[in-house]
Amino acid sequence: MEYSFSHVHTVRVRYSETDQMGYCYYGNYAQYFEIGRVEALRDLGISYRAMEDDGVMLPVVELLIKYLRPAYYDDELLIETFLTEITGARISFRHEIKNANNEITTTAETKLVFVDKESKRPTKAPEPLVRALSKFLKQ
Amino acid sequence: MEYSFSHVHTVRVRYSETDQMGYCYYGNYAQYFEIGRVEALRDLGISYRAMEDDGVMLPVVELLIKYLRPAYYDDELLIETFLTEITGARISFRHEIKNANNEITTTAETKLVFVDKESKRPTKAPEPLVRALSKFLKQ
Amino acid sequence: MEYSFSHVHTVRVRYSETDQMGYCYYGNYAQYFEIGRVEALRDLGISYRAMEDDGVMLPVVELLIKYLRPAYYDDELLIETFLTEITGARISFRHEIKNANNEITTTAETKLVFVDKESKRPTKAPEPLVRALSKFLKQ
Amino acid sequence: MEYSFSHVHTVRVRYSETDQMGYCYYGNYAQYFEIGRVEALRDLGISYRAMEDDGVMLPVVELLIKYLRPAYYDDELLIETFLTEITGARISFRHEIKNANNEITTTAETKLVFVDKESKRPTKAPEPLVRALSKFLKQ
Repeated sequence: MEYSFSHVHTVRVRYSETDQMGYCYYGNYAQYFEIGRVEALRDLGISYRAMEDDGVMLPVVELLIKYLRPAYYDDELLIETFLTEITGARISFRHEIKNANNEITTTAETKLVFVDKESKRPTKAPEPLVRALSKFLKQ
Repeated sequence: MEYSFSHVHTVRVRYSETDQMGYCYYGNYAQYFEIGRVEALRDLGISYRAMEDDGVMLPVVELLIKYLRPAYYDDELLIETFLTEITGARISFRHEIKNANNEITTTAETKLVFVDKESKRPTKAPEPLVRALSKFLKQ
Repeated sequence: MEYSFSHVHTVRVRYSETDQMGYCYYGNYAQYFEIGRVEALRDLGISYRAMEDDGVMLPVVELLIKYLRPAYYDDELLIETFLTEITGARISFRHEIKNANNEITTTAETKLVFVDKESKRPTKAPEPLVRALSKFLKQ
Repeated sequence: MEYSFSHVHTVRVRYSETDQMGYCYYGNYAQYFEIGRVEALRDLGISYRAMEDDGVMLPVVELLIKYLRPAYYDDELLIETFLTEITGARISFRHEIKNANNEITTTAETKLVFVDKESKRPTKAPEPLVRALSKFLKQ
Protein backbone atom coordinates (compact mmCIF):
# COMPACT_ATOMS: atom_id res chain seq x y z
CA MET A 1 0.00 0.00 0.00
CA GLU A 2 1.29 3.48 -0.85
CA TYR A 3 0.48 6.39 1.39
CA SER A 4 0.90 10.15 1.30
CA PHE A 5 1.30 11.10 4.92
CA SER A 6 3.95 13.47 6.20
CA HIS A 7 4.81 15.22 9.44
CA VAL A 8 7.25 17.97 10.41
CA HIS A 9 9.24 18.02 13.64
CA THR A 10 11.97 20.41 14.76
CA VAL A 11 15.28 19.54 16.43
CA ARG A 12 18.14 21.77 17.45
CA VAL A 13 21.71 20.57 16.79
CA ARG A 14 23.34 19.76 20.15
CA TYR A 15 26.93 20.64 20.98
CA SER A 16 27.62 16.94 21.47
CA GLU A 17 26.48 16.37 17.90
CA THR A 18 29.12 18.63 16.34
CA ASP A 19 32.52 17.37 15.26
CA GLN A 20 35.84 19.13 14.89
CA MET A 21 34.99 20.21 11.33
CA GLY A 22 32.27 22.26 13.03
CA TYR A 23 29.60 20.16 11.28
CA CYS A 24 26.81 18.07 12.73
CA TYR A 25 28.51 14.64 12.61
CA TYR A 26 27.20 12.50 9.73
CA GLY A 27 26.30 9.62 12.02
CA ASN A 28 23.85 11.67 14.08
CA TYR A 29 21.30 12.04 11.29
CA ALA A 30 20.10 8.47 11.85
CA GLN A 31 18.84 9.70 15.25
CA TYR A 32 17.04 12.62 13.63
CA PHE A 33 15.27 10.30 11.19
CA GLU A 34 14.26 8.00 14.03
CA ILE A 35 12.81 10.97 15.95
CA GLY A 36 11.02 12.06 12.77
CA ARG A 37 9.45 8.61 12.35
CA VAL A 38 8.37 8.39 15.98
CA GLU A 39 6.79 11.85 15.92
CA ALA A 40 5.06 11.07 12.60
CA LEU A 41 3.55 7.97 14.20
CA ARG A 42 2.54 9.97 17.30
CA ASP A 43 0.77 12.44 15.01
CA LEU A 44 -1.21 9.46 13.66
CA GLY A 45 -2.18 8.52 17.21
CA ILE A 46 0.34 5.67 17.39
CA SER A 47 2.86 5.47 20.22
CA TYR A 48 6.00 3.61 19.18
CA ARG A 49 6.71 2.93 22.86
CA ALA A 50 3.29 1.29 23.30
CA MET A 51 3.77 -0.70 20.10
CA GLU A 52 6.97 -2.19 21.53
CA ASP A 53 5.28 -2.85 24.88
CA ASP A 54 2.62 -4.70 22.87
CA GLY A 55 5.29 -6.96 21.42
CA VAL A 56 6.18 -5.43 18.05
CA MET A 57 9.64 -4.00 17.39
CA LEU A 58 10.61 -2.02 14.30
CA PRO A 59 14.30 -2.36 13.45
CA VAL A 60 15.76 -0.51 10.46
CA VAL A 61 16.94 -2.75 7.61
CA GLU A 62 18.06 -0.11 5.12
CA LEU A 63 19.25 3.46 5.36
CA LEU A 64 20.29 5.77 2.52
CA ILE A 65 21.41 9.31 3.32
CA LYS A 66 22.49 12.09 0.97
CA TYR A 67 24.33 14.95 2.66
CA LEU A 68 23.76 18.06 0.54
CA ARG A 69 24.84 20.79 2.97
CA PRO A 70 26.33 20.72 6.45
CA ALA A 71 24.25 21.59 9.50
CA TYR A 72 25.86 23.54 12.34
CA TYR A 73 25.70 23.81 16.12
CA ASP A 74 22.47 25.32 17.44
CA ASP A 75 20.77 25.20 14.01
CA GLU A 76 17.06 24.58 14.19
CA LEU A 77 16.37 21.84 11.68
CA LEU A 78 12.99 20.94 10.24
CA ILE A 79 12.70 17.19 9.78
CA GLU A 80 9.94 16.26 7.36
CA THR A 81 9.01 12.59 7.45
CA PHE A 82 6.98 10.99 4.65
CA LEU A 83 5.41 7.61 5.35
CA THR A 84 5.38 6.26 1.82
CA GLU A 85 4.64 2.53 1.82
CA ILE A 86 3.67 -0.53 3.83
CA THR A 87 4.11 -3.88 2.10
CA GLY A 88 3.65 -6.96 4.26
CA ALA A 89 6.03 -6.59 7.19
CA ARG A 90 7.92 -3.65 5.62
CA ILE A 91 7.41 0.06 6.12
CA SER A 92 9.23 2.77 4.15
CA PHE A 93 9.88 6.40 4.97
CA ARG A 94 11.39 9.32 3.10
CA HIS A 95 13.08 12.08 5.12
CA GLU A 96 14.00 15.63 4.29
CA ILE A 97 15.86 18.03 6.57
CA LYS A 98 15.77 21.79 6.02
CA ASN A 99 17.70 24.53 7.78
CA ALA A 100 16.39 27.93 8.87
CA ASN A 101 17.07 29.33 5.36
CA ASN A 102 14.70 26.70 3.98
CA GLU A 103 17.60 24.94 2.26
CA ILE A 104 17.47 21.15 2.12
CA THR A 105 20.54 19.94 3.98
CA THR A 106 19.91 16.19 3.94
CA THR A 107 17.58 13.66 2.35
CA ALA A 108 17.15 10.03 3.32
CA GLU A 109 15.18 6.87 2.86
CA THR A 110 14.66 4.27 5.55
CA LYS A 111 13.13 0.81 5.37
CA LEU A 112 12.05 -0.98 8.54
CA VAL A 113 10.50 -4.34 9.38
CA PHE A 114 7.81 -5.11 11.94
CA VAL A 115 9.24 -7.90 14.09
CA ASP A 116 7.50 -9.99 16.73
CA LYS A 117 9.39 -9.44 19.99
CA GLU A 118 9.04 -13.06 21.12
CA SER A 119 9.59 -15.04 17.93
CA LYS A 120 11.95 -12.45 16.37
CA ARG A 121 10.11 -13.13 13.09
CA PRO A 122 8.69 -10.51 10.70
CA THR A 123 5.05 -9.78 11.39
CA LYS A 124 2.24 -7.75 9.80
CA ALA A 125 1.89 -4.03 10.43
CA PRO A 126 -0.21 -3.49 13.58
CA GLU A 127 -3.89 -3.02 12.80
CA PRO A 128 -4.24 0.40 14.56
CA LEU A 129 -1.47 1.82 12.35
CA VAL A 130 -3.02 0.53 9.14
CA ARG A 131 -6.39 1.93 10.22
CA ALA A 132 -4.93 5.33 11.14
CA LEU A 133 -3.26 5.51 7.74
CA SER A 134 -6.30 4.44 5.72
CA LYS A 135 -7.32 7.99 4.86
CA PHE A 136 -3.85 8.70 3.47
CA LEU A 137 -4.00 5.78 1.07
CA LYS A 138 -2.91 6.71 -2.46
CA GLN A 139 -5.43 5.89 -5.21
CA MET B 1 35.89 -4.75 51.48
CA GLU B 2 38.69 -2.66 49.99
CA TYR B 3 40.69 -3.96 47.06
CA SER B 4 43.78 -2.93 45.14
CA PHE B 5 43.14 -4.20 41.67
CA SER B 6 43.73 -2.15 38.54
CA HIS B 7 43.73 -2.69 34.81
CA VAL B 8 44.83 -0.61 31.81
CA HIS B 9 42.97 -0.48 28.51
CA THR B 10 43.59 1.72 25.46
CA VAL B 11 41.01 3.59 23.39
CA ARG B 12 41.49 5.92 20.46
CA VAL B 13 39.37 9.08 20.29
CA ARG B 14 36.87 8.72 17.43
CA TYR B 15 35.99 11.53 15.05
CA SER B 16 32.38 11.25 16.23
CA GLU B 17 33.61 11.93 19.76
CA THR B 18 35.11 15.33 18.94
CA ASP B 19 33.15 18.55 19.20
CA GLN B 20 33.56 21.87 17.44
CA MET B 21 36.07 23.07 20.05
CA GLY B 22 38.23 20.25 18.68
CA TYR B 23 38.06 18.46 22.04
CA CYS B 24 36.79 15.02 22.93
CA TYR B 25 33.26 15.95 24.08
CA TYR B 26 32.96 15.88 27.87
CA GLY B 27 29.99 13.50 27.79
CA ASN B 28 31.94 10.74 26.03
CA TYR B 29 34.20 9.99 28.98
CA ALA B 30 31.40 8.08 30.70
CA GLN B 31 31.70 5.56 27.85
CA TYR B 32 35.44 5.30 28.37
CA PHE B 33 35.00 4.58 32.08
CA GLU B 34 32.39 1.94 31.30
CA ILE B 35 34.77 0.27 28.83
CA GLY B 36 37.51 0.47 31.46
CA ARG B 37 35.29 -1.26 34.05
CA VAL B 38 34.21 -4.00 31.66
CA GLU B 39 37.79 -4.73 30.58
CA ALA B 40 38.95 -4.72 34.21
CA LEU B 41 36.29 -7.33 35.01
CA ARG B 42 37.26 -9.36 31.93
CA ASP B 43 40.85 -9.34 33.17
CA LEU B 44 39.53 -10.89 36.41
CA GLY B 45 37.80 -13.59 34.37
CA ILE B 46 34.36 -12.02 34.75
CA SER B 47 32.23 -11.26 31.69
CA TYR B 48 29.85 -8.40 32.29
CA ARG B 49 27.69 -9.70 29.45
CA ALA B 50 27.40 -13.11 31.12
CA MET B 51 26.67 -11.46 34.48
CA GLU B 52 23.69 -9.67 32.91
CA ASP B 53 22.56 -12.86 31.19
CA ASP B 54 22.69 -14.48 34.64
CA GLY B 55 20.27 -11.87 35.94
CA VAL B 56 22.45 -9.20 37.57
CA MET B 57 22.64 -5.67 36.14
CA LEU B 58 25.07 -3.01 37.27
CA PRO B 59 23.70 0.52 36.81
CA VAL B 60 25.82 3.53 37.76
CA VAL B 61 24.48 5.56 40.70
CA GLU B 62 27.20 8.17 40.99
CA LEU B 63 29.74 9.68 38.62
CA LEU B 64 32.34 12.34 39.38
CA ILE B 65 34.68 13.51 36.61
CA LYS B 66 37.49 16.05 36.74
CA TYR B 67 38.66 17.28 33.36
CA LEU B 68 42.29 18.34 33.71
CA ARG B 69 43.37 18.54 30.06
CA PRO B 70 41.49 18.12 26.79
CA ALA B 71 41.91 15.00 24.68
CA TYR B 72 41.96 15.30 20.89
CA TYR B 73 40.91 13.38 17.82
CA ASP B 74 42.93 10.23 17.17
CA ASP B 75 44.68 10.42 20.57
CA GLU B 76 45.46 7.05 22.05
CA LEU B 77 44.27 7.22 25.63
CA LEU B 78 45.29 4.88 28.44
CA ILE B 79 42.35 4.21 30.73
CA GLU B 80 43.45 2.90 34.11
CA THR B 81 40.62 1.43 36.16
CA PHE B 82 41.01 0.80 39.89
CA LEU B 83 38.46 -1.47 41.57
CA THR B 84 38.56 -0.01 45.04
CA GLU B 85 35.66 -1.24 47.12
CA ILE B 86 32.68 -3.58 47.37
CA THR B 87 30.26 -2.93 50.23
CA GLY B 88 27.02 -4.90 50.18
CA ALA B 89 25.40 -4.22 46.82
CA ARG B 90 27.77 -1.36 45.95
CA ILE B 91 30.98 -1.40 43.93
CA SER B 92 33.32 1.57 43.52
CA PHE B 93 35.88 2.34 40.85
CA ARG B 94 38.50 5.04 40.36
CA HIS B 95 39.51 5.96 36.82
CA GLU B 96 42.51 7.76 35.40
CA ILE B 97 43.05 8.64 31.76
CA LYS B 98 46.49 9.45 30.38
CA ASN B 99 47.48 10.70 26.95
CA ALA B 100 50.51 9.63 24.89
CA ASN B 101 52.69 12.16 26.76
CA ASN B 102 51.83 10.37 29.98
CA GLU B 103 49.86 13.39 31.18
CA ILE B 104 46.70 12.71 33.19
CA THR B 105 43.84 14.23 31.21
CA THR B 106 40.90 13.07 33.30
CA THR B 107 40.17 11.43 36.63
CA ALA B 108 36.88 9.98 37.79
CA GLU B 109 35.06 7.99 40.41
CA THR B 110 32.07 5.80 39.72
CA LYS B 111 29.74 3.99 42.11
CA LEU B 112 27.48 1.22 40.85
CA VAL B 113 24.88 -1.08 42.38
CA PHE B 114 24.32 -4.76 41.68
CA VAL B 115 20.62 -5.06 40.82
CA ASP B 116 18.54 -8.20 40.35
CA LYS B 117 17.13 -8.06 36.82
CA GLU B 118 13.76 -9.54 37.82
CA SER B 119 13.00 -7.86 41.13
CA LYS B 120 14.89 -4.64 40.25
CA ARG B 121 16.18 -4.73 43.86
CA PRO B 122 19.80 -4.33 45.00
CA THR B 123 21.53 -7.65 45.38
CA LYS B 124 24.88 -8.93 46.67
CA ALA B 125 27.98 -8.90 44.47
CA PRO B 126 28.09 -12.15 42.44
CA GLU B 127 30.16 -14.86 44.14
CA PRO B 128 32.58 -15.43 41.22
CA LEU B 129 33.56 -11.76 41.28
CA VAL B 130 34.17 -11.73 45.03
CA ARG B 131 36.24 -14.90 44.68
CA ALA B 132 38.29 -13.53 41.77
CA LEU B 133 39.03 -10.42 43.79
CA SER B 134 39.96 -12.20 47.00
CA LYS B 135 43.70 -12.07 46.33
CA PHE B 136 43.54 -8.29 45.82
CA LEU B 137 41.93 -7.73 49.23
CA LYS B 138 43.61 -4.94 51.18
CA GLN B 139 44.83 -5.86 54.67
CA MET C 1 29.23 36.20 42.85
CA GLU C 2 26.30 33.99 43.77
CA TYR C 3 23.13 34.03 41.72
CA SER C 4 19.66 32.59 41.93
CA PHE C 5 18.64 32.11 38.36
CA SER C 6 17.02 28.96 37.04
CA HIS C 7 15.41 27.79 33.83
CA VAL C 8 13.37 24.73 32.84
CA HIS C 9 13.69 22.94 29.51
CA THR C 10 12.08 19.71 28.33
CA VAL C 11 13.73 16.86 26.43
CA ARG C 12 12.31 13.54 25.34
CA VAL C 13 14.49 10.43 25.74
CA ARG C 14 15.52 9.22 22.27
CA TYR C 15 15.61 5.57 21.26
CA SER C 16 19.33 5.96 20.57
CA GLU C 17 19.77 7.05 24.18
CA THR C 18 18.42 3.83 25.67
CA ASP C 19 20.64 0.87 26.49
CA GLN C 20 19.88 -2.83 26.76
CA MET C 21 18.82 -2.46 30.40
CA GLY C 22 16.00 -0.35 28.95
CA TYR C 23 17.36 2.72 30.76
CA CYS C 24 18.54 6.04 29.40
CA TYR C 25 22.30 5.36 29.26
CA TYR C 26 24.17 7.07 32.10
CA GLY C 27 26.56 8.86 29.74
CA ASN C 28 23.78 10.72 27.93
CA TYR C 29 22.89 12.94 30.88
CA ALA C 30 25.94 15.11 30.22
CA GLN C 31 24.22 16.13 26.98
CA TYR C 32 21.03 16.97 28.83
CA PHE C 33 22.89 19.20 31.27
CA GLU C 34 24.66 20.94 28.38
CA ILE C 35 21.30 21.58 26.68
CA GLY C 36 19.95 22.87 29.99
CA ARG C 37 22.85 25.32 30.35
CA VAL C 38 22.55 26.57 26.78
CA GLU C 39 18.79 27.11 27.10
CA ALA C 40 19.26 28.84 30.48
CA LEU C 41 21.73 31.22 28.83
CA ARG C 42 19.35 31.76 25.88
CA ASP C 43 16.63 32.68 28.39
CA LEU C 44 19.01 35.36 29.72
CA GLY C 45 19.44 36.69 26.18
CA ILE C 46 22.87 35.09 25.74
CA SER C 47 23.58 32.85 22.75
CA TYR C 48 26.29 30.31 23.52
CA ARG C 49 26.92 29.98 19.79
CA ALA C 50 27.52 33.72 19.48
CA MET C 51 29.76 33.68 22.56
CA GLU C 52 31.98 31.09 20.86
CA ASP C 53 31.95 33.03 17.61
CA ASP C 54 33.11 36.03 19.68
CA GLY C 55 36.10 34.03 20.88
CA VAL C 56 35.09 32.60 24.25
CA MET C 57 34.69 28.86 24.77
CA LEU C 58 33.25 27.24 27.86
CA PRO C 59 34.64 23.75 28.49
CA VAL C 60 33.45 21.72 31.47
CA VAL C 61 36.09 21.08 34.14
CA GLU C 62 34.02 19.16 36.68
CA LEU C 63 30.90 17.03 36.53
CA LEU C 64 29.14 15.28 39.40
CA ILE C 65 26.00 13.25 38.71
CA LYS C 66 23.76 11.34 41.10
CA TYR C 67 21.43 8.85 39.44
CA LEU C 68 18.40 8.44 41.72
CA ARG C 69 15.93 6.76 39.36
CA PRO C 70 16.22 5.49 35.80
CA ALA C 71 14.63 7.38 32.90
CA TYR C 72 13.04 5.42 30.07
CA TYR C 73 12.51 5.66 26.34
CA ASP C 74 10.09 8.40 25.27
CA ASP C 75 9.94 9.91 28.78
CA GLU C 76 9.52 13.65 28.78
CA LEU C 77 12.10 14.96 31.20
CA LEU C 78 12.12 18.40 32.81
CA ILE C 79 15.67 19.70 33.10
CA GLU C 80 15.93 22.48 35.66
CA THR C 81 19.20 24.40 35.44
CA PHE C 82 20.33 26.67 38.28
CA LEU C 83 23.10 29.16 37.53
CA THR C 84 24.61 29.42 40.99
CA GLU C 85 27.98 31.14 40.86
CA ILE C 86 30.53 33.02 38.80
CA THR C 87 33.98 33.45 40.34
CA GLY C 88 36.67 34.84 38.08
CA ALA C 89 36.80 32.58 35.03
CA ARG C 90 34.60 29.90 36.61
CA ILE C 91 30.86 29.38 36.32
CA SER C 92 28.87 26.79 38.29
CA PHE C 93 25.52 25.18 37.60
CA ARG C 94 23.24 22.85 39.49
CA HIS C 95 20.95 20.55 37.51
CA GLU C 96 17.82 18.63 38.43
CA ILE C 97 15.91 16.29 36.17
CA LYS C 98 12.31 15.31 36.87
CA ASN C 99 10.11 12.78 35.12
CA ALA C 100 6.42 13.13 34.27
CA ASN C 101 5.47 11.95 37.80
CA ASN C 102 7.43 14.89 39.18
CA GLU C 103 10.02 12.51 40.66
CA ILE C 104 13.63 13.68 40.65
CA THR C 105 15.53 11.15 38.56
CA THR C 106 18.94 12.81 38.48
CA THR C 107 20.83 15.67 40.08
CA ALA C 108 24.13 17.14 38.99
CA GLU C 109 26.65 19.89 39.41
CA THR C 110 28.85 21.22 36.64
CA LYS C 111 31.75 23.64 36.76
CA LEU C 112 33.00 25.31 33.59
CA VAL C 113 35.74 27.77 32.69
CA PHE C 114 35.59 30.67 30.26
CA VAL C 115 38.53 30.17 27.90
CA ASP C 116 39.89 32.55 25.26
CA LYS C 117 39.69 30.71 21.93
CA GLU C 118 42.99 32.11 20.67
CA SER C 119 45.23 32.00 23.73
CA LYS C 120 43.49 28.96 25.25
CA ARG C 121 43.84 30.76 28.60
CA PRO C 122 41.08 31.28 31.19
CA THR C 123 39.34 34.59 30.76
CA LYS C 124 36.72 36.65 32.59
CA ALA C 125 33.01 35.98 32.15
CA PRO C 126 31.71 37.98 29.16
CA GLU C 127 30.29 41.35 30.16
CA PRO C 128 26.81 40.81 28.59
CA LEU C 129 26.35 37.67 30.68
CA VAL C 130 27.36 39.37 33.93
CA ARG C 131 25.01 42.25 33.11
CA ALA C 132 22.09 39.94 32.26
CA LEU C 133 22.59 38.15 35.57
CA SER C 134 22.90 41.26 37.71
CA LYS C 135 19.25 41.24 38.77
CA PHE C 136 19.61 37.64 39.99
CA LEU C 137 22.52 38.48 42.27
CA LYS C 138 22.12 37.05 45.77
CA GLN C 139 22.37 39.53 48.64
CA MET D 1 40.65 5.41 -10.77
CA GLU D 2 39.49 2.08 -9.37
CA TYR D 3 41.47 0.39 -6.63
CA SER D 4 41.44 -2.93 -4.86
CA PHE D 5 42.69 -2.13 -1.39
CA SER D 6 41.08 -3.40 1.78
CA HIS D 7 41.82 -3.43 5.47
CA VAL D 8 40.31 -5.19 8.48
CA HIS D 9 39.85 -3.60 11.90
CA THR D 10 38.10 -4.95 14.99
CA VAL D 11 35.72 -3.09 17.30
CA ARG D 12 33.79 -4.32 20.28
CA VAL D 13 30.18 -3.17 20.72
CA ARG D 14 30.01 -0.80 23.71
CA TYR D 15 27.20 -0.84 26.26
CA SER D 16 26.41 2.74 25.27
CA GLU D 17 25.88 1.54 21.72
CA THR D 18 23.09 -0.89 22.58
CA ASP D 19 19.43 0.11 22.57
CA GLN D 20 16.46 -1.28 24.45
CA MET D 21 15.85 -3.91 21.76
CA GLY D 22 19.24 -5.25 22.88
CA TYR D 23 20.71 -4.44 19.44
CA CYS D 24 23.61 -2.23 18.51
CA TYR D 25 21.67 0.94 17.59
CA TYR D 26 21.43 1.43 13.82
CA GLY D 27 22.90 4.92 13.97
CA ASN D 28 26.18 3.76 15.50
CA TYR D 29 27.36 1.93 12.40
CA ALA D 30 28.32 5.22 10.76
CA GLN D 31 30.99 5.50 13.47
CA TYR D 32 32.25 2.01 12.73
CA PHE D 33 32.59 2.81 9.03
CA GLU D 34 34.46 6.01 9.85
CA ILE D 35 36.86 4.07 12.09
CA GLY D 36 37.27 1.51 9.30
CA ARG D 37 38.17 4.23 6.78
CA VAL D 38 40.62 5.93 9.12
CA GLU D 39 42.37 2.65 9.95
CA ALA D 40 42.47 1.70 6.26
CA LEU D 41 44.19 5.02 5.52
CA ARG D 42 46.59 4.51 8.44
CA ASP D 43 47.49 1.12 6.99
CA LEU D 44 48.43 2.97 3.76
CA GLY D 45 50.67 5.28 5.78
CA ILE D 46 48.18 8.15 5.69
CA SER D 47 47.05 9.85 8.90
CA TYR D 48 43.60 11.37 8.55
CA ARG D 49 44.43 13.68 11.45
CA ALA D 50 47.52 14.96 9.64
CA MET D 51 45.54 15.37 6.42
CA GLU D 52 43.09 17.65 8.23
CA ASP D 53 45.94 19.55 9.88
CA ASP D 54 47.33 20.04 6.37
CA GLY D 55 44.07 21.69 5.32
CA VAL D 56 42.03 18.92 3.69
CA MET D 57 38.77 17.71 5.25
CA LEU D 58 36.83 14.67 4.09
CA PRO D 59 33.09 14.98 4.80
CA VAL D 60 30.73 12.15 3.85
CA VAL D 61 28.25 13.00 1.08
CA GLU D 62 26.48 9.67 0.75
CA LEU D 63 25.86 6.72 3.03
CA LEU D 64 23.99 3.50 2.23
CA ILE D 65 23.67 0.84 4.91
CA LYS D 66 22.01 -2.59 4.73
CA TYR D 67 21.35 -4.18 8.10
CA LEU D 68 21.31 -7.96 7.57
CA ARG D 69 21.63 -9.20 11.16
CA PRO D 70 21.71 -7.43 14.51
CA ALA D 71 24.94 -7.05 16.44
CA TYR D 72 24.89 -7.36 20.23
CA TYR D 73 26.62 -5.96 23.28
CA ASP D 74 30.25 -7.06 23.66
CA ASP D 75 30.34 -8.63 20.17
CA GLU D 76 33.70 -8.37 18.50
CA LEU D 77 33.00 -7.12 15.01
CA LEU D 78 35.36 -7.31 12.05
CA ILE D 79 35.04 -4.21 9.91
CA GLU D 80 36.43 -4.75 6.42
CA THR D 81 36.92 -1.53 4.47
CA PHE D 82 37.43 -1.56 0.71
CA LEU D 83 38.80 1.59 -0.90
CA THR D 84 37.22 1.24 -4.32
CA GLU D 85 37.50 4.47 -6.28
CA ILE D 86 38.89 7.98 -6.45
CA THR D 87 37.43 10.26 -9.12
CA GLY D 88 38.43 13.90 -8.96
CA ALA D 89 37.54 15.11 -5.48
CA ARG D 90 35.49 12.02 -4.64
CA ILE D 91 36.53 8.85 -2.82
CA SER D 92 34.35 5.76 -2.41
CA PHE D 93 34.48 2.98 0.12
CA ARG D 94 32.64 -0.31 0.57
CA HIS D 95 32.24 -1.69 4.09
CA GLU D 96 31.43 -5.13 5.40
CA ILE D 97 30.94 -6.07 9.04
CA LYS D 98 31.19 -9.65 10.25
CA ASN D 99 30.48 -11.11 13.67
CA ALA D 100 32.45 -13.80 15.49
CA ASN D 101 30.52 -16.52 13.61
CA ASN D 102 31.82 -15.04 10.37
CA GLU D 103 28.30 -13.93 9.43
CA ILE D 104 27.98 -10.64 7.57
CA THR D 105 25.85 -8.42 9.78
CA THR D 106 26.00 -5.17 7.82
CA THR D 107 27.18 -3.86 4.47
CA ALA D 108 27.60 -0.25 3.45
CA GLU D 109 28.86 2.17 0.86
CA THR D 110 30.17 5.62 1.63
CA LYS D 111 31.13 8.45 -0.69
CA LEU D 112 33.24 11.34 0.58
CA VAL D 113 34.64 14.54 -0.90
CA PHE D 114 38.05 16.09 -0.31
CA VAL D 115 37.37 19.68 0.74
CA ASP D 116 39.83 22.52 1.18
CA LYS D 117 39.52 23.67 4.80
CA GLU D 118 39.94 27.36 3.94
CA SER D 119 37.92 27.77 0.75
CA LYS D 120 35.42 25.00 1.66
CA ARG D 121 35.63 23.96 -2.01
CA PRO D 122 36.19 20.43 -3.34
CA THR D 123 39.83 19.72 -3.99
CA LYS D 124 41.92 16.93 -5.50
CA ALA D 125 42.88 13.85 -3.51
CA PRO D 126 46.15 14.55 -1.63
CA GLU D 127 49.21 13.39 -3.58
CA PRO D 128 50.59 11.10 -0.82
CA LEU D 129 47.32 9.15 -0.77
CA VAL D 130 47.25 8.72 -4.55
CA ARG D 131 50.89 7.60 -4.48
CA ALA D 132 50.30 5.12 -1.63
CA LEU D 133 47.40 3.64 -3.54
CA SER D 134 49.18 3.37 -6.89
CA LYS D 135 50.12 -0.26 -6.42
CA PHE D 136 46.49 -1.17 -5.75
CA LEU D 137 45.31 0.35 -9.02
CA LYS D 138 42.97 -1.94 -10.97
CA GLN D 139 43.98 -2.70 -14.55
